[in-house]
Amino acid sequence: MTITPPALSVFETLESEVRSYCRGWPAVFDRAQGSHLHDEDGHTYLDFFAGAGSLNYGHNNPVLKRALIDYIERDGITHGLDMATTAKRAFLETFENVILRPRDLPYKVMFPGPTGTNAVEAALKLARKVKGRESVVSFTNAFHGMSLGSLAVTGNAFKRAGAGIPLVHGTPMPFDNYFDGTVEDFLWFERLLEDQGSGLNKPAAVIVETVQGEGGINVARAEWLRALQDLCHRQDMLLIVDDIQMGCGRTGGFFSFEEAGITPDIVTLSKSISGYGMPMSLCLFKPELDVWEPGEHNGTFRGNNPAFVTATASLNTYWADGQMEKQTLARGEQVERALLAIADENAGAGVSFRGRGLVWGLEFADKDRATAVCRRAFELGMLLETSGPQSEVVKLLPALTISPDELDQGLRILARSVRETA
Amino acid sequence: MTITPPALSVFETLESEVRSYCRGWPAVFDRAQGSHLHDEDGHTYLDFFAGAGSLNYGHNNPVLKRALIDYIERDGITHGLDMATTAKRAFLETFENVILRPRDLPYKVMFPGPTGTNAVEAALKLARKVKGRESVVSFTNAFHGMSLGSLAVTGNAFKRAGAGIPLVHGTPMPFDNYFDGTVEDFLWFERLLEDQGSGLNKPAAVIVETVQGEGGINVARAEWLRALQDLCHRQDMLLIVDDIQMGCGRTGGFFSFEEAGITPDIVTLSKSISGYGMPMSLCLFKPELDVWEPGEHNGTFRGNNPAFVTATASLNTYWADGQMEKQTLARGEQVERALLAIADENAGAGVSFRGRGLVWGLEFADKDRATAVCRRAFELGMLLETSGPQSEVVKLLPALTISPDELDQGLRILARSVRETA
Amino acid sequence: MTITPPALSVFETLESEVRSYCRGWPAVFDRAQGSHLHDEDGHTYLDFFAGAGSLNYGHNNPVLKRALIDYIERDGITHGLDMATTAKRAFLETFENVILRPRDLPYKVMFPGPTGTNAVEAALKLARKVKGRESVVSFTNAFHGMSLGSLAVTGNAFKRAGAGIPLVHGTPMPFDNYFDGTVEDFLWFERLLEDQGSGLNKPAAVIVETVQGEGGINVARAEWLRALQDLCHRQDMLLIVDDIQMGCGRTGGFFSFEEAGITPDIVTLSKSISGYGMPMSLCLFKPELDVWEPGEHNGTFRGNNPAFVTATASLNTYWADGQMEKQTLARGEQVERALLAIADENAGAGVSFRGRGLVWGLEFADKDRATAVCRRAFELGMLLETSGPQSEVVKLLPALTISPDELDQGLRILARSVRETA
Amino acid sequence: MTITPPALSVFETLESEVRSYCRGWPAVFDRAQGSHLHDEDGHTYLDFFAGAGSLNYGHNNPVLKRALIDYIERDGITHGLDMATTAKRAFLETFENVILRPRDLPYKVMFPGPTGTNAVEAALKLARKVKGRESVVSFTNAFHGMSLGSLAVTGNAFKRAGAGIPLVHGTPMPFDNYFDGTVEDFLWFERLLEDQGSGLNKPAAVIVETVQGEGGINVARAEWLRALQDLCHRQDMLLIVDDIQMGCGRTGGFFSFEEAGITPDIVTLSKSISGYGMPMSLCLFKPELDVWEPGEHNGTFRGNNPAFVTATASLNTYWADGQMEKQTLARGEQVERALLAIADENAGAGVSFRGRGLVWGLEFADKDRATAVCRRAFELGMLLETSGPQSEVVKLLPALTISPDELDQGLRILARSVRETA
Repeated sequence: MTITPPALSVFETLESEVRSYCRGWPAVFDRAQGSHLHDEDGHTYLDFFAGAGSLNYGHNNPVLKRALIDYIERDGITHGLDMATTAKRAFLETFENVILRPRDLPYKVMFPGPTGTNAVEAALKLARKVKGRESVVSFTNAFHGMSLGSLAVTGNAFKRAGAGIPLVHGTPMPFDNYFDGTVEDFLWFERLLEDQGSGLNKPAAVIVETVQGEGGINVARAEWLRALQDLCHRQDMLLIVDDIQMGCGRTGGFFSFEEAGITPDIVTLSKSISGYGMPMSLCLFKPELDVWEPGEHNGTFRGNNPAFVTATASLNTYWADGQMEKQTLARGEQVERALLAIADENAGAGVSFRGRGLVWGLEFADKDRATAVCRRAFELGMLLETSGPQSEVVKLLPALTISPDELDQGLRILARSVRETA
Repeated sequence: MTITPPALSVFETLESEVRSYCRGWPAVFDRAQGSHLHDEDGHTYLDFFAGAGSLNYGHNNPVLKRALIDYIERDGITHGLDMATTAKRAFLETFENVILRPRDLPYKVMFPGPTGTNAVEAALKLARKVKGRESVVSFTNAFHGMSLGSLAVTGNAFKRAGAGIPLVHGTPMPFDNYFDGTVEDFLWFERLLEDQGSGLNKPAAVIVETVQGEGGINVARAEWLRALQDLCHRQDMLLIVDDIQMGCGRTGGFFSFEEAGITPDIVTLSKSISGYGMPMSLCLFKPELDVWEPGEHNGTFRGNNPAFVTATASLNTYWADGQMEKQTLARGEQVERALLAIADENAGAGVSFRGRGLVWGLEFADKDRATAVCRRAFELGMLLETSGPQSEVVKLLPALTISPDELDQGLRILARSVRETA
Repeated sequence: MTITPPALSVFETLESEVRSYCRGWPAVFDRAQGSHLHDEDGHTYLDFFAGAGSLNYGHNNPVLKRALIDYIERDGITHGLDMATTAKRAFLETFENVILRPRDLPYKVMFPGPTGTNAVEAALKLARKVKGRESVVSFTNAFHGMSLGSLAVTGNAFKRAGAGIPLVHGTPMPFDNYFDGTVEDFLWFERLLEDQGSGLNKPAAVIVETVQGEGGINVARAEWLRALQDLCHRQDMLLIVDDIQMGCGRTGGFFSFEEAGITPDIVTLSKSISGYGMPMSLCLFKPELDVWEPGEHNGTFRGNNPAFVTATASLNTYWADGQMEKQTLARGEQVERALLAIADENAGAGVSFRGRGLVWGLEFADKDRATAVCRRAFELGMLLETSGPQSEVVKLLPALTISPDELDQGLRILARSVRETA
Repeated sequence: MTITPPALSVFETLESEVRSYCRGWPAVFDRAQGSHLHDEDGHTYLDFFAGAGSLNYGHNNPVLKRALIDYIERDGITHGLDMATTAKRAFLETFENVILRPRDLPYKVMFPGPTGTNAVEAALKLARKVKGRESVVSFTNAFHGMSLGSLAVTGNAFKRAGAGIPLVHGTPMPFDNYFDGTVEDFLWFERLLEDQGSGLNKPAAVIVETVQGEGGINVARAEWLRALQDLCHRQDMLLIVDDIQMGCGRTGGFFSFEEAGITPDIVTLSKSISGYGMPMSLCLFKPELDVWEPGEHNGTFRGNNPAFVTATASLNTYWADGQMEKQTLARGEQVERALLAIADENAGAGVSFRGRGLVWGLEFADKDRATAVCRRAFELGMLLETSGPQSEVVKLLPALTISPDELDQGLRILARSVRETA
């Protein structure tokens, strides 16, 4: 496939220099369906990126699309703040029946605003309010968002520098396997908490991703997550799982923490919760933490009702039984086999991989290789992104609804891209 | 109209205590069109609230609805991050041609995330980065958002307390007319800036709303805004106008600051920018300020393409000529006459009013009266909200597309509600 | 007098560039007695500076000197931390009997460390602990010290920039007469406190100097101080008077706030409290505020016992009756007459003056003039310092024990210096 | 010896509850000489505390006393701010000739105020100014002072809580041997620095005590200090050694870091620098760091000239040759032998000890034992203090000038106290 660089004029002249994805993927996209995007020049791209995890059910999923159009056609409420609406009620009832009750999760549901960072901000506020302490512990290579509260618990130095103020009240601790297993889990963290002379400001909460997506597909072991929950209980800290990228089935179960058998005090969801790529986020918490005053946190777009409609449809379609989880795990095994083959083929080049469900990372000893692989994959018609602090990891994030054939096709493009960038 | 309180069960059992609008308006809304909402029991409500300013063109505006459904039907890109898309290009070109160029505004356009607070966070980051200073001046009774950066420049003590950390790097200054004209404009602010011993941390920027919506419909005079711009220029501070609620034609012109003839360094837009009540926000700034590195600020839903589609349609439909501005000013005069009559009728009860375009406030000396008025209006089938630090102001925020008859009907309900709460 | 610039070699080669007084007064001082210093070349200087207010009883006051030598000779405890010592007991009893009881002041006494900033840090800590709030209000052109807590409530931009971190948790308010009487006292401050939407973080305390020494000899009126105390009471804020420079009789009474008839909640003392220029400071507070845990604040040199000895002697010698106060007020009148004459003589040159007791400021419209006057005075054998944010004020701070003749001599040198720098 | 609890009346009624040493040692001290204090009832106490390290040359050292009285008698300058004086010149020249030049240390000398925390505040300011970063790394169980800048890098949770504001801009790292040798030195710290996604705000400087006195007599190994210096050099951070308690010969050499062969960028000195227990402190730094503006940091008692006089005498008396260092090391061996015997005698009771020069700690598995031992020692006529986050360590800090017999006597009292508290 030969791609003619499109005329990006208005993007270059009018849009801010802050734009980024459009630089790595120089095409003007027009339509999309399932696991494929189409640009205005007629090229088709296989999507192994899925809107950074916002399109778990594929682009413009037909079932959700039908529900969405019906809702719009019949003039359903579009913008609802936190007024009660029929669409919101349907979502809440479905979320309770399909997601919370079967998992025995006792959460209250808060609509904190339309995007992930709103949910993280709400979670941090609530934890601080409940515990009466300012400090929050996050982990190395964490990513929680760009507004100041979330950014203070995000690891990336480049993003942090954008704050323009010193980011305080957050302390990083080593994520699982940060020292390749040579140091006992939580050795440093627990010792600081127990030592009255350590200088650590006692945290209100710990915020963690079970799999760090932006941080380089770092997968926390189930026993590490359980030990973290234990530590939080022993030390009177709230456990916040940021499931914005890894929730909604990405790792298999609806919540990524189900596998570990833990029950976080607070959970944030966004990205794929609406199912259709529309802005929506949730903050879930144990009922005893629901100490909010009415309106203490608010936001204009916290009642994005069309998103509630597609969210409801996605839950009913994909989560009423255990099929989606099984399928994701099966697809994950397909990915794993392919990555193993790539690693074998490139033995000696320092290639390693890791993942869970349908999120996988392929890391190269040569830090620049991952970018080259993604560039080559784009030339070959596939969207693939890097992650990690030095963009050293190829991140595989296909839609959960991808077919085995599409998945196979993409994995072959990946293998070829690796080969051709050796 | 007799309204039976609906069974709000799932809202009461599952949704967080933080919910607020649904408490004042105990109905379950189902559909909406133009200036009317309908609840599931068949009641109809005249809307003088317009999604807190997010629905300037009314609910489910048919022109925008058509464009939106067409886009969804043809599988246009829904979720685009900051990839180039045809929908985004159309929006950018239209925004340039219809809004920026005719007003001689040189701005670059940034998509900072889907909601207003994302735009404010981006504006503050950029100002701090450009000037290398942390401090930002805001005004008494300002409202800029709920994430930590925005909250630090928001005045409301109740909202601020929700932060759970001390909010610093912001300093409040008196908004226009804070002392009822008895103190020279900017006397305190300018003196602090000029006095090397004042103790004021030199601000990177000043952030201001031309009309404070949440703060009580406080209207800054054009000459005050011009003097503020002059002060910023003299003192090397950036001027940020937060036009999230007052932009998109609410006060007449597309930008609320046009009337004053100023050109802010940075402008934030959200709420009605998509036209259809869908999450979208913009941060505009002078090209010389565009010092962002690619990806230095990002966000999952900054490319909400369906919103770009309705935004484009709204600009083409309503802003290609000066009709909308004229109509808004005419409707504003209609409101003003009605409020004058109400004030006359209630002379002695300490009723005053103020506003611009189609944003008006009716204040009562009895601080509890405004809430009573809104409650009564709801019983009479109208949505009307209070604002101000003590909820002492009735806020009139009808859609710009409201008809003279609908407006008249609402103003009569308002007059009756005032009368009946005396 | 002709002064040969001394060889300052080791000061220039070894001492840090941060040194300052030695630059304006290029002499190497060797001995001092009363109101005179002597340099190593045999020159004598009349002292109108008094160790920046630390030598209210003159250099090496013979009564105190006798007590000090006796104490050292008999091997009295020198360094005592906060152990009970006979010297400390004598001081505490004397302070109670001579100072507190006659003035009906109920204060507990804390020894927070040897210097003024230690006392301010302790005062701020205590106020925050008692009220559970972080914010403290200070005034324009305040000076409270150089450690980070004190610096955050100090106005001078140059000193503040030295912090290397953003100084937060402090908010400046206009000192008395900041707007030359054109704005009602506390208009801005009180309005911010009353307005729940003002954005002011509610302060734990207000810290104030009754006369700002470093800030330019700004004299607060008694009624302003009383109104400030009232405001603090009404708004549940503690009133801290920093009497480090103006206490110990500088303005007449032992405490500078006595004249206003107020009783601050917390008072800081230092500088002349030891009487002999030795490091010592006190933090006084109402007994109900004494919520310190043992050792919660400490410091190595908080028990400087030789300073307790001279402090005790100074109290017994000068404060057992009302003579010192009367004398200071009389000397102050002598200064005032002379300054009036200087102002008259220089009418048209924008000369103004103000002061209380034995602290006076002479301000020039030409901002560089004060420095020139002090330089000329030094050539004429007198130490005289500037103050104010632009060093625009000549500060007169002679010892309280200066004789009328010495005072007259100094005032004549001042008049000549003014004349010769016209 | 039977001690009748003295009437502490004025201490109990007038002095703040913050007092602490006087609670553990209920005597009213009157005189002191060398290693003995005498209370007003005629009891004598052997001093194994030395003013918390401020009396390295004993109480009222006769050589220094002579110099001090002579200076006072001849009316030498007492209070000098940072004016040039003959006493200051003598000190600077002596410090250069006796201390800096023989050790090839290139430092500039700053007089930051009279007490240790002033020196730490100045050091932190300078490091932040030089590097343009806010963050400073300190170590677990560090103690650097009570003013807000110093407190933020101090570990003790009880002292930190006194701040009344969140203490930020400091991050604790594990001190040497924090994990009993099971974790590689600086593993965590270095990894955070190298990982661009770690979330650590890049530090301007690292501040360290070579032996943590208040923290429990934790002794850093020379190789650990060298590795720390290397890390600072590689990562562009300044190395600050806080030698306030361990400098002035406490560990043998004049500076405690000499043994490790490192040259810190900044050094703080106080406590024993005046030699006589009088308030004085220094901040030393490499000449290229001397970027202070004149007066950018200042303080009323930074020119405590009598302290300069005794400081000069102490340097000339004790540091002109290597005798003091040798003697301290010999005395240290005497202590070590005695502690070994105590540990042997109490094998099974979990007694351990560590130290360098004349600072030693004796730790008990039973956390309350150390307090009991010190209480018993007091009854037996000896001052002995605990340290460590839970006061679990008996701290031995005798004067460097203690005689072998006095030392032996004290060690026997210690052994007996241990025995009698078993």
